[in-house]
Amino acid sequence: MTVTVGDIGEFGLIGRIAKEAFTVPGEALGFQDDAALWRQGDGWLIATTDALVEDVDFRLNTFSWEDIGWKALASNLSDIAAMGGVPRGAFVTLCLPAGIEASDVTAFYKGMAPLAREAQTPILGGDLSSSKQIVVSITVLGEVESRERVLQRVTARVGDQIAVTGVLGSAAAGLVLLEEGQNENEDHAARYISAQRRPIPRLREGRTLLEAGVRCGMDISDGLVADLQKLCAASGVKAEVLLESIPTDPDLPLVFGDAFRLHAMSGGEDFELLFVAPPETMQRAQDHLQDNALEQVTVIGTIVAGQGGAITVRDERGNIVPLSHQGFDHFGAIGTPLADA
Amino acid sequence: MTVTVGDIGEFGLIGRIAKEAFTVPGEALGFQDDAALWRQGDGWLIATTDALVEDVDFRLNTFSWEDIGWKALASNLSDIAAMGGVPRGAFVTLCLPAGIEASDVTAFYKGMAPLAREAQTPILGGDLSSSKQIVVSITVLGEVESRERVLQRVTARVGDQIAVTGVLGSAAAGLVLLEEGQNENEDHAARYISAQRRPIPRLREGRTLLEAGVRCGMDISDGLVADLQKLCAASGVKAEVLLESIPTDPDLPLVFGDAFRLHAMSGGEDFELLFVAPPETMQRAQDHLQDNALEQVTVIGTIVAGQGGAITVRDERGNIVPLSHQGFDHFGAIGTPLADA
Repeated sequence: MTVTVGDIGEFGLIGRIAKEAFTVPGEALGFQDDAALWRQGDGWLIATTDALVEDVDFRLNTFSWEDIGWKALASNLSDIAAMGGVPRGAFVTLCLPAGIEASDVTAFYKGMAPLAREAQTPILGGDLSSSKQIVVSITVLGEVESRERVLQRVTARVGDQIAVTGVLGSAAAGLVLLEEGQNENEDHAARYISAQRRPIPRLREGRTLLEAGVRCGMDISDGLVADLQKLCAASGVKAEVLLESIPTDPDLPLVFGDAFRLHAMSGGEDFELLFVAPPETMQRAQDHLQDNALEQVTVIGTIVAGQGGAITVRDERGNIVPLSHQGFDHFGAIGTPLADA
Repeated sequence: MTVTVGDIGEFGLIGRIAKEAFTVPGEALGFQDDAALWRQGDGWLIATTDALVEDVDFRLNTFSWEDIGWKALASNLSDIAAMGGVPRGAFVTLCLPAGIEASDVTAFYKGMAPLAREAQTPILGGDLSSSKQIVVSITVLGEVESRERVLQRVTARVGDQIAVTGVLGSAAAGLVLLEEGQNENEDHAARYISAQRRPIPRLREGRTLLEAGVRCGMDISDGLVADLQKLCAASGVKAEVLLESIPTDPDLPLVFGDAFRLHAMSGGEDFELLFVAPPETMQRAQDHLQDNALEQVTVIGTIVAGQGGAITVRDERGNIVPLSHQGFDHFGAIGTPLADA
């Protein structure tokens, strides 16, 4: 029987690849974290790579070329933030049809420029090739102080609190509005569409969490449920989450109705940080972020004993909330970001 | 008037991008060389990125998934060889339709494994995404000893000799045979098809050239004429090449007829090294490569005074040979690798 990529999904494939590829066990962290980490001379480097594909991750009728450039770089910088790293440079590969206007290509790089400058991440190189569909592939290099001083997924412990930065669901709401052909006339629509097109990587938040002593975390790119499951599976624990604690934009029900918190938990691309720490460290993290006027932190649950990475979501009456939306897998094994992708 | 990517071509675009992007002048070498180079802690890092696109760089009916994996990694390692660097790790992004068999994806990684192991280049990370067309984007990181001890394009001087490693035109001949639907029944066909599908990056040759004192070079990916033009343009010099000196496989006329040397000069993807050095350094380079049983070196011409990177090719009677085939540009401004790409 033939097994396709769609059958086993993105995360099943990663497991098979890790067995076949020439990898280095021990010294380098990779595959299961947001970025690889390895010793380089007297320091520690991290690197991450992430691709955006036309009609899978964006559409040309709802994203400008500046938006595509911004989002492609932002999603990579978010993986550096997810490790608590400092970005040092980016490599940008752009595959596109020969009939695209040259000014669109320069707009793509212009869209990246403010984010690159803010994050002190120069574009060090890249590649251009022709293709039928636009594909942007970016690799970002960064640094951390040591192998231990980093946010990882394997370090969650029973009794730790689970928290997120910022609010969730805004990027998913923006996607809904864009797919419905709505524009940015209203304030909340403008916020959601901006969250979808121009997410802000939480680089300073990641650094501040490390300084506060947090050592377990990742970014939320595929949705809170899917990403918290990965973190729990890596650490060999389970999670209990309180539905009403999920932080959202106050106007989110305008897009998602009463089930807005479930959408906030399953919607991807918010690029907020998800992290886990003992209560005293969590309090210090909240204080440090507040002192530095960074994104707010909301505690949403607790790490509990158990294998397999399962997540239990309860409402405030203690009832278990069924999870129908699981998050995003690029080959459709769970969810799809764009309707016909 | 609308100017498309196809109108200005890959190399015109790179110039425009360098103006728009947030780049770091001074410290980092990039854009005009095969790989970017920058200071990292107490060392010097280099990195390069290169994409392969289905029906542009390979076809599924003439390349196995192992071949695609090998060639994608080889073309990136060749850019590290082109700087005289030592590769340290690779990041692999694979975009593909969900209907592809999962075993094809593992075959892709299997195809890379022997080359990765030989070059001591572990796969440190990557990304998987869905797309209509297969796109492989790889970034390879490496090291050099210093900013000066590296092969660059800007360092050619009047009076230097021009040389190449190995033979040219075999990969182009392999492409012709594959496009004609021919197989590997005959020895020479097997050699050419292997040169096209499984090129060998000249990593040890690049290191040995550096040790011999060579400081100017690049790899031949787009064809000798196109790549020598880039080198001369970067150095602000011209080149004189002797047609009969171009090294080729003795059976190359079986594929290209009498004009086989012109095809050898315009055909891309040989991934041999092109380098330039004063005569005494060139002699030392030849001796060092021979002592280490590496690829042979053939001197093919001389650097002469003049701006603009122009190349003059003469036959042994001193007549100028007209160059109709200029090499490869991904957007068709000069040449195309596959017939309908």
